[in-house]
Amino acid sequence: MSPDQIAAARGAALPTPALTPSGPAEAPAAPPAGPAITEAKLANGLDIVVIPDRRAPVVTHMVWYRNGSADDPLGKSGIAHFLEHLMFKGTKNHKQGEFSELVADSGGQENAFTSNDYTAYFQRVATGELAVCMEYEADRMKNLVLSDEIVAPEREVVMEERRMRTDSDPSDQLNEAVQAALFTQHPYGKPIIGWGHEIEGLDREDALRYYNRFYTPENAILVVAGDVEPAEVIALAEKIYGPIPAHGEAPKRNRPREPEPRAHRRVTLTDEKVEQPSYQAVYLAPSYRTAAPGVGEALEVLGHLLGGGNTSLLFKQLVMEQKIAVAAGAHYQGTAVDDTRFYVFGLPAPGVSLERLETAIDAVIAEVAAHGVDEADFHRAKTRLVADAVYAQDSQAALARWYGASLATGLSIADVAAWPARIEAVTLDDVKKAAHWLDKKRSVAGFLLPANDEGAAETAAA
Amino acid sequence: MSPDQIAAARGAALPTPALTPSGPAEAPAAPPAGPAITEAKLANGLDIVVIPDRRAPVVTHMVWYRNGSADDPLGKSGIAHFLEHLMFKGTKNHKQGEFSELVADSGGQENAFTSNDYTAYFQRVATGELAVCMEYEADRMKNLVLSDEIVAPEREVVMEERRMRTDSDPSDQLNEAVQAALFTQHPYGKPIIGWGHEIEGLDREDALRYYNRFYTPENAILVVAGDVEPAEVIALAEKIYGPIPAHGEAPKRNRPREPEPRAHRRVTLTDEKVEQPSYQAVYLAPSYRTAAPGVGEALEVLGHLLGGGNTSLLFKQLVMEQKIAVAAGAHYQGTAVDDTRFYVFGLPAPGVSLERLETAIDAVIAEVAAHGVDEADFHRAKTRLVADAVYAQDSQAALARWYGASLATGLSIADVAAWPARIEAVTLDDVKKAAHWLDKKRSVAGFLLPANDEGAAETAAA
Repeated sequence: MSPDQIAAARGAALPTPALTPSGPAEAPAAPPAGPAITEAKLANGLDIVVIPDRRAPVVTHMVWYRNGSADDPLGKSGIAHFLEHLMFKGTKNHKQGEFSELVADSGGQENAFTSNDYTAYFQRVATGELAVCMEYEADRMKNLVLSDEIVAPEREVVMEERRMRTDSDPSDQLNEAVQAALFTQHPYGKPIIGWGHEIEGLDREDALRYYNRFYTPENAILVVAGDVEPAEVIALAEKIYGPIPAHGEAPKRNRPREPEPRAHRRVTLTDEKVEQPSYQAVYLAPSYRTAAPGVGEALEVLGHLLGGGNTSLLFKQLVMEQKIAVAAGAHYQGTAVDDTRFYVFGLPAPGVSLERLETAIDAVIAEVAAHGVDEADFHRAKTRLVADAVYAQDSQAALARWYGASLATGLSIADVAAWPARIEAVTLDDVKKAAHWLDKKRSVAGFLLPANDEGAAETAAA
Repeated sequence: MSPDQIAAARGAALPTPALTPSGPAEAPAAPPAGPAITEAKLANGLDIVVIPDRRAPVVTHMVWYRNGSADDPLGKSGIAHFLEHLMFKGTKNHKQGEFSELVADSGGQENAFTSNDYTAYFQRVATGELAVCMEYEADRMKNLVLSDEIVAPEREVVMEERRMRTDSDPSDQLNEAVQAALFTQHPYGKPIIGWGHEIEGLDREDALRYYNRFYTPENAILVVAGDVEPAEVIALAEKIYGPIPAHGEAPKRNRPREPEPRAHRRVTLTDEKVEQPSYQAVYLAPSYRTAAPGVGEALEVLGHLLGGGNTSLLFKQLVMEQKIAVAAGAHYQGTAVDDTRFYVFGLPAPGVSLERLETAIDAVIAEVAAHGVDEADFHRAKTRLVADAVYAQDSQAALARWYGASLATGLSIADVAAWPARIEAVTLDDVKKAAHWLDKKRSVAGFLLPANDEGAAETAAA
């Protein structure tokens, strides 16, 4: 329901469906059990991960910075995403567009994305182009030009992006309000793109200070996947990224912890542009990084059982049996540095109120919390999740992205490799217990309603 | 409904009813038109305000610091209030309790309070004791002892205060959740006492850093009201407070502005301890400091008309005529550095749902926004507010407090003096326009419900 990152497409197509901006389908993306990963760390602090994939003479080159929108300084929301834009504007050595042209001319693809917890840049090119990609990427890690002439017009581009994306879309506005209500003090409550009135105030000084603070080798992870020799990749990285001076130490994330939620919240948005009403519930839940061992995996299985596709409990009960919804689902957004979100949603059938839908969804959850799930469904869900992990290895970019996102959110290579076994280890009782995280008072409900008349909000809530 | 400050009584009775912890009755407290105020500023930056009141040989001595809970550093909520406690623990020159004993022995009273925007300390003593009060107060402005032996046990006292006040009171828990939902990024959303998990982490280093940053002459306002000669008070302050070295400049408030609210939010808390359900709505509204000229005053008049006592619109319509509520009211919390709160509340009659009450309250507000208010009611409300300002002068401490709170939130002596005339200048049309701030999407509704059974939350919301 709520995008957890902004992927900015800049003339280059996204390489695989798994790399589209994440939604319910993306969150439980699957980690591989297979490849032999090589890790290294340069003297300047740069982490390196090499993932062999020899099926084609293609390489994916990514640099992940361990800073996302949740690290935006107070009153400067949107600056992580703004920097992602500015990273394409040229350096002391290369003018704007050179790097992108190089990638495009060789038939490659490139992109960048900003999430709550990280900002990442990638190119997918012929193996022979790896060194030149590294050179361009290393160059913009230290030589970015941030003049007023560059910063001011790009801020307008971002403002326009916000106007297009959010200010004209009631559903996105509701999502912003729901996240802000869920995270009362943790910065996950701020939109990745930033609040409009704060984006307007971002200037060259802000960009420069941010760039100097976060765009450092200690704060970055280089991920290379493809038809490469790990030792050669590391030697190449040493030569190209190695000369970038260390800044001292990696910047610290300053993330206040959420107080324990005690009251259920409901956020309602009515707008003339809404044609299909919708209901969502977002629960504050532990992430893979913050959860006790096994709890993240149990929430993943629960998300799949409750709402992963047309065989899920919510779909079967609300859409097929009760026929009160035209769609329903759930998913767990487990990859996060801090406590995260478990999403449940439904689109009501014509004439069904959101309150009725909410009550029906709550009953499905309560049933799971009280009596657990069907054993055959349970085994099918686990098998499917593990299979997804295997299939994910088919996509080189998805594989690189899975490792990058995991490492950038505080997990280790070992955590990623152990994931399928940990999913296998989830028990029926674990799933039942995990459903207790879906406690009303841990959640925010989002009601999206058409504004048929002035009294719509009241009528709908009565 | 929601306390906007914590007044810590330490064995000393509160001097007047106007100084009890604020609630609906306190917020529209009245400024005086009368006394000839003297202002001064010491070389070290301390602001001085002297208010003559010659009816009795009594003096009120207050020091206001321009820092409250909304200035608590990220992850350190509660530290402003914690420091207020620590300020009573003794200095290099005086051991704990000496100052309080002095005040008590001379038949005086003392207290301190922490609000969103300020922290203040006061004594009310015989005029002859003014100099010694100044000496003790100046002493703890620079010589506070903050050892581990003092900080750690006092933190437990504050934790216990939180347990007593909030953790056992569903109504206070709901208020915390409502404020957190209203202020999605502005620190007014944090409880003054702090989140429990953050209070637990406050240590000596935090206290010392905070004390050094905020407890400075540049950040303070000395208010003296009573049977005194202004020139003598200023000379005495120069002698006693003057030697405290300036720190350079006053600490800056770092307050991110709220994004424009776009979706209505509802927060529901059900608890077995609830006997009387209640409904509140809190609207984000401009404060006297942030509003366009006249708008704060119009909101004040609107608050009084809508919900100030038993002749108000809400009381008459809901309690007396429709008989669906046993109480109802409203008030505007205008004294604030940043955008603030307009409160509306009601307690339903037995058998009446909160939804029905909400709809009825919304209808009263919508009627005012559409057609304005009765002209006779309007003149009565203004007369009453201005009269309150005159009566307030009867209480020396209330007078001192009014000036202190106004100055500490960014207003001037002239603003306070002009308030009655500005209330007089409010027009019928201003009040009608002010009601447009009470737009559903600017608000958070708080539902407090008894937990009769497990399904209470769902049933009540259906």
